[in-house]
Amino acid sequence: MRALEDLRERLGVVADLDAAAAVLGWDQETYMPPGAIEARAAQLTTLARLSHETFTDEKIGRLLDAAATELDADSFGSDDPAFDSDDASLVRVATRDWERATKIPADLVARLAHAASMGQQAWQRARQASDFSAFEDHLRTILELTRDKAEALGYDDRIYDPLLAEFEPGISTGEIELLFATLRQELVPIVEALTDGAADKGEIPGRLDGSPDKAERPDRVDGSEHDDDSDRAGASGSTAPPQIAPPPLDRVFDAAAQWDFGVAVIEDFGFDFEHGRQDRSAHPFTTAFSAADVRLTTRIHEDFLPAGLFGTLHECGHGLYEQGFAPELARTPLADGASLGVHESQSRLWEILVGRSRPFWAHYFPRLRDSFPESLDDIDTDAFYRAINTVRPSLIRVEADEVTYNFHIMVRFELENALLEGRVAVGDLPAAWNDAMERYLGIVPDSDADGVLQDIHWSMGAIGYFPTYTLGNLMSAQIFARLRQDIPDLDEQIAAGRFDELLAWLRHNIHRHGRKFTAPELLERIGCGPLSAEPWLEHIRGKYGELSGKSL
Amino acid sequence: MRALEDLRERLGVVADLDAAAAVLGWDQETYMPPGAIEARAAQLTTLARLSHETFTDEKIGRLLDAAATELDADSFGSDDPAFDSDDASLVRVATRDWERATKIPADLVARLAHAASMGQQAWQRARQASDFSAFEDHLRTILELTRDKAEALGYDDRIYDPLLAEFEPGISTGEIELLFATLRQELVPIVEALTDGAADKGEIPGRLDGSPDKAERPDRVDGSEHDDDSDRAGASGSTAPPQIAPPPLDRVFDAAAQWDFGVAVIEDFGFDFEHGRQDRSAHPFTTAFSAADVRLTTRIHEDFLPAGLFGTLHECGHGLYEQGFAPELARTPLADGASLGVHESQSRLWEILVGRSRPFWAHYFPRLRDSFPESLDDIDTDAFYRAINTVRPSLIRVEADEVTYNFHIMVRFELENALLEGRVAVGDLPAAWNDAMERYLGIVPDSDADGVLQDIHWSMGAIGYFPTYTLGNLMSAQIFARLRQDIPDLDEQIAAGRFDELLAWLRHNIHRHGRKFTAPELLERIGCGPLSAEPWLEHIRGKYGELSGKSL
Repeated sequence: MRALEDLRERLGVVADLDAAAAVLGWDQETYMPPGAIEARAAQLTTLARLSHETFTDEKIGRLLDAAATELDADSFGSDDPAFDSDDASLVRVATRDWERATKIPADLVARLAHAASMGQQAWQRARQASDFSAFEDHLRTILELTRDKAEALGYDDRIYDPLLAEFEPGISTGEIELLFATLRQELVPIVEALTDGAADKGEIPGRLDGSPDKAERPDRVDGSEHDDDSDRAGASGSTAPPQIAPPPLDRVFDAAAQWDFGVAVIEDFGFDFEHGRQDRSAHPFTTAFSAADVRLTTRIHEDFLPAGLFGTLHECGHGLYEQGFAPELARTPLADGASLGVHESQSRLWEILVGRSRPFWAHYFPRLRDSFPESLDDIDTDAFYRAINTVRPSLIRVEADEVTYNFHIMVRFELENALLEGRVAVGDLPAAWNDAMERYLGIVPDSDADGVLQDIHWSMGAIGYFPTYTLGNLMSAQIFARLRQDIPDLDEQIAAGRFDELLAWLRHNIHRHGRKFTAPELLERIGCGPLSAEPWLEHIRGKYGELSGKSL
Repeated sequence: MRALEDLRERLGVVADLDAAAAVLGWDQETYMPPGAIEARAAQLTTLARLSHETFTDEKIGRLLDAAATELDADSFGSDDPAFDSDDASLVRVATRDWERATKIPADLVARLAHAASMGQQAWQRARQASDFSAFEDHLRTILELTRDKAEALGYDDRIYDPLLAEFEPGISTGEIELLFATLRQELVPIVEALTDGAADKGEIPGRLDGSPDKAERPDRVDGSEHDDDSDRAGASGSTAPPQIAPPPLDRVFDAAAQWDFGVAVIEDFGFDFEHGRQDRSAHPFTTAFSAADVRLTTRIHEDFLPAGLFGTLHECGHGLYEQGFAPELARTPLADGASLGVHESQSRLWEILVGRSRPFWAHYFPRLRDSFPESLDDIDTDAFYRAINTVRPSLIRVEADEVTYNFHIMVRFELENALLEGRVAVGDLPAAWNDAMERYLGIVPDSDADGVLQDIHWSMGAIGYFPTYTLGNLMSAQIFARLRQDIPDLDEQIAAGRFDELLAWLRHNIHRHGRKFTAPELLERIGCGPLSAEPWLEHIRGKYGELSGKSL
């Protein structure tokens, strides 16, 4: 196994360089002083170039061939137990990566890394000033370089395909479009029923109360929203509970107490602070420098509880996945999520399927009220549960309810395709954004900060990434339905604040495998069948049917 | 100038890799979770190896020759203005570095980096447990690898020489020994006079009140110290103020208020938080990822004010130097301090010559008292000034007074030489430490935590580093004496909290040059003459003569 050993050593160097770049990226978003951006961009560019050069060296290509021969890897199919071995998986996945990476010139990789580093900083400033023009040139550069990358990778039909494949291998742009068409068809009547058609009629005020930047721009707080809500609830003429619960979530919640509550919950989930930590950043994210060093970030708004609370639970879901990779996979390309969709399935599972469920709050609401007695003393568990599951078209993706969330993804997916295919120019993007928001959600942002500038992804060069959020939602429901069969008393465990069996199931069936299997392979293996929207729609119909008293 | 351009690009890659390693090192000391150490060691090892391989590539050797030819560098001496140019300095300094680096095998570099990363973590644990045996094997490995490095570099007489040259080029072990002999000879009577011979008679209690770990081991606080102090002051029979002032410094000082006061002072000094920041670490240090990204760390003890206060001013001195490198030097080997001695001269200048001076506290003491009214309401400026300039043999180097400080360095320098030359075994080091402390300072620590385990340096593989602290003290006094000629009203400016002219002088005469000149070249150029102990001894005699009312 000499080739395999040599291969492992070389892939280890690549993993170390990528981990170093991840540390620099984490630092850039958490602690780096603002004036340091140019030097940091140069450093990240160098690391990206060296990583790419080291990985795409033709010696690695030869070692991959030699290692495959050593393992006799061609002799077994995906149903052979040998397919599952760490060694065979390493060669299989690294070969796929190598073939992809060798198509992209090192110079283009370096330019993309540099543009992403500069772009992120520009985006942050542009968003703060709500000034798209301050970001426009950066986005144009990133888009051009991304097009170059797609051309270098090659594609048959859609330029989006090779970009999507980076984040979600094995799923095509066309499949996503079909999936989104189905979802839209099923969801529109559900949202209509839950909001009494308000979205379609454009009756809903143009912003979710307590958007994250509210504190910075108090002139835009609109007191009429509550009145509108009451009108709508009254107009429905129904005796069912109003869809839009009294909003205690925008009261004042001390930042330190929010932080402590979130940390206490994710410690209960099983997040290991010996091998991870949580910091603050403008945009919450999770990154890992190894399974032994997983960094969560969160943001906290004192006048909007869900941002920090559910942000923390969400990132913890990502973090638990990263902490669960088998130690044997360290310093290999297998020490990563199976795909971004699978990664998102883990975050949404903990954030939504656990963290916004009745059994969870049966346990945690009394503790939450103890943490914030002044803001929650007139609220009971049921009222709180309703408040955090309010369905209402809104402007900010990361704070959208789970039902309308996928519309936000459709907006981005549509615009990414339009930009790449030249149907929308970068300069026209804010208008195109607002138009798409109107079509999908029936509302339009007042500012680019609450619109086209709200997400960090494009500034990082992550184009083709967004649809994986929806895939993650769908997969989370598939996985949750499956694990309920093995843990029949899951709700009782959650209601007792016990998550060990749940985490152990996920560790065993999903986490430890890292990137050994693609998403479809993984779903098949754990008995979920092929990717499907049905379990998720069933979850939505069940949960919101119960909440609204309607048949959805 | 094609070779020079190519050279710059390659050196830029090395600078980026080193900066990335510095970020990982900073993170390791500030935020990294404890369980991450092994993965981090692998990452740092890879970065160190790649940096070394990239720099020692023979292509760089050829480019250095070609660039020297392009510049016609051999045609001018050090008195030629062309010698000063950025390009000529780059080629001159990089050639010196390259010739040194090519002597060390890449594998040894990697092993040293790995041992240092593991060693630091082990040292931290050993120090916390005050258990030298938990660090012993790591130190043995580091010592062996360091010997291998010295052998690879080569030397005529002393194995210490090539190690010292890494930190302080152009000064030999023998010169340091002579300098230390002179200092010891001059200092012993001074310390005797200031402490009324207490040190020699072994009358001084074995620990400085308020040592940093006091809070962790309250059983070792010894109430009898104050009595001893009174006795000694009485026994001197002098009407001069007692040498050891009433100790308000060990009262309770709120950590957040300490932090804020320190930050306010270093902002006044001119530290630029747009291009730097301060965090906490177990052992204060300064690191920089570029002149635009300078990281200070400090530690704060609520029951011992000087640790945080003077630690912050000290590190700020280092940080101001790093922020002052000319932008043209970025991503070259010139964007660094001239030597560790010169670096230390900057930190000691701000910490001691400014920060422990009468004019400084004339301005800042009223503010300090406002920050800590409860602990300082019975103290006036003069009493505080005396307290922070108390001379007393003590156990902890970083909290030693400036007079006895150099004895701490002599202890370490002597032991390093003895270890390297095989006269002391690693296992016997704690005993040898205590013996040397007895000889130099007349006191012996009760524990290894307060003794041989107190400094991080050896755990990082930094052997040959310590004497640069004393060199820094001497140089700081030479530089301060020189700049007083150009800024006659310096004391008045400091007493008004104005540091702009002082900083501008340092920027112009020292900081902007980075590593273009060696310490002797730099001192000569700014009119300080050759390295000398005299200006420092003059400072000590003047300051402590005034304080004690004695002729020293």
